[in-house]
Amino acid sequence: MPVRPADIQLAHRLADAAGAVIRPYFRSAAGVRLKDDKSPVTLADIEAEAAMRRILDAERSGDGIVGEEYGEKPGVTGRRWVLDPIDGTRSFTAGRAIFGTLIALVEDGWPVLGIIDQPVQRERWVGVAGRATELNGAPARTRACAALEGATIATTSPHLFADGDVPHYLSLVAAVSGNAPRQGPVYGGDCYNYGLLASGHLDLVCESGLQLYDFAALVPVVEGAGGRMCDWNGDPLTAQSAGHVLAIGDPARTDDVLEALRNVAHDHDHAHDH
Amino acid sequence: MPVRPADIQLAHRLADAAGAVIRPYFRSAAGVRLKDDKSPVTLADIEAEAAMRRILDAERSGDGIVGEEYGEKPGVTGRRWVLDPIDGTRSFTAGRAIFGTLIALVEDGWPVLGIIDQPVQRERWVGVAGRATELNGAPARTRACAALEGATIATTSPHLFADGDVPHYLSLVAAVSGNAPRQGPVYGGDCYNYGLLASGHLDLVCESGLQLYDFAALVPVVEGAGGRMCDWNGDPLTAQSAGHVLAIGDPARTDDVLEALRNVAHDHDHAHDH
Repeated sequence: MPVRPADIQLAHRLADAAGAVIRPYFRSAAGVRLKDDKSPVTLADIEAEAAMRRILDAERSGDGIVGEEYGEKPGVTGRRWVLDPIDGTRSFTAGRAIFGTLIALVEDGWPVLGIIDQPVQRERWVGVAGRATELNGAPARTRACAALEGATIATTSPHLFADGDVPHYLSLVAAVSGNAPRQGPVYGGDCYNYGLLASGHLDLVCESGLQLYDFAALVPVVEGAGGRMCDWNGDPLTAQSAGHVLAIGDPARTDDVLEALRNVAHDHDHAHDH
Repeated sequence: MPVRPADIQLAHRLADAAGAVIRPYFRSAAGVRLKDDKSPVTLADIEAEAAMRRILDAERSGDGIVGEEYGEKPGVTGRRWVLDPIDGTRSFTAGRAIFGTLIALVEDGWPVLGIIDQPVQRERWVGVAGRATELNGAPARTRACAALEGATIATTSPHLFADGDVPHYLSLVAAVSGNAPRQGPVYGGDCYNYGLLASGHLDLVCESGLQLYDFAALVPVVEGAGGRMCDWNGDPLTAQSAGHVLAIGDPARTDDVLEALRNVAHDHDHAHDH
């Protein structure tokens, strides 16, 4: 069933509401604390998610909500809104406007609508199943990538890979960069990298440890731009993918990427992720 | 001798000229190629440096010029302008507005004037010896940092450290993050991180392999904001520092940082920088 225009409009209003909360906190020292896993959370996260939930409670009271900060509210419609008010809190607290608000609508377990919103630079990628992705209303397309070597790969931090994932990640990096460090990955960026991939500025994003609220919104954005989102085995992403997320701008490179991830050389065996 | 207002004004005009060249190329696919060391260079780099050199040739014909793209032009005044049209070319080509144009005036071997200019977000940090650093005309100050653990450290990429530097870098990261990966470094950002440190959003930047044109402009910006720039031994940066650059927002933490860099534990000995 096509996504209803009213749901797309609502998603824009959620992003507007989150952005209005977040902007005044940007580069403010107010309200940063650490969660139990030592990841930072800010008043901007908490208040932005609350602002989005107020709208959903009022206008989509039967839908479920999954949010990074407030957990899960069960629904009765089979539809769930998946919210991450600030994906990239480390960049946010460091004053870098390359974080994003993530909003997804999941129907029957599949994300059919996704928004990546950068409220400071006012950039909004919108992906809707069956439609072309847009950045601020203009079509966004991934770019062609003729070969893995020389492709641009991005990921937030190499320290975020679990020990067992590191050799696979480094094998992919070696295939892309030909071991030239200055051709190595572009680091930092969180969800913003997926928007840049959707707009044809990056070729690959490889991450692990992502939660549903981290990746649900990315799927319609990347796929509506012509790219492919899958796990490290090439399978569709699910809540059970253990957060092994790949975004591939040119789907023709999918097999090359999966092969590079599998092809762990012996000299990577003692690599680890201090 | 105090920096002349005419030199400060000229530096602003150099930044204006570079920005006017760079902005139209941002997120354009035009003109990217790889240098011999596989680092990318773009028409934006080349043309922006040329635009700055034209102004200097016309108005400061006796001064020397050192630039990333066109090399060194000797001068006769003892003054040198040090230019990096796009520091963070990887971010630039990936469409991330966290690169910068670097402009420094070096007198008697010491940078007395520095600009970090982000032409897309239109953010300009200006540091002048003996004056308070400004961001877009407003004072910029580093923030206090009571303890190394919990501080925010930034660096462009862990892959840019030479093999022998990696254990020292990781030792500093461990001291800062307490081995909690989600408290780990903020990656990406190049010169932009030094501006954010000058404005009190980051506590530390640690890098190696920087060239004179990478760090000359950073020194007056960071020090005029109350921070400290030094090499990994705590000594002033020179062209002979092998590019081991530290920026410390709160100078009271200098000894802690130097100690953490020296304090390489045995379990780091087999770490390396694939």
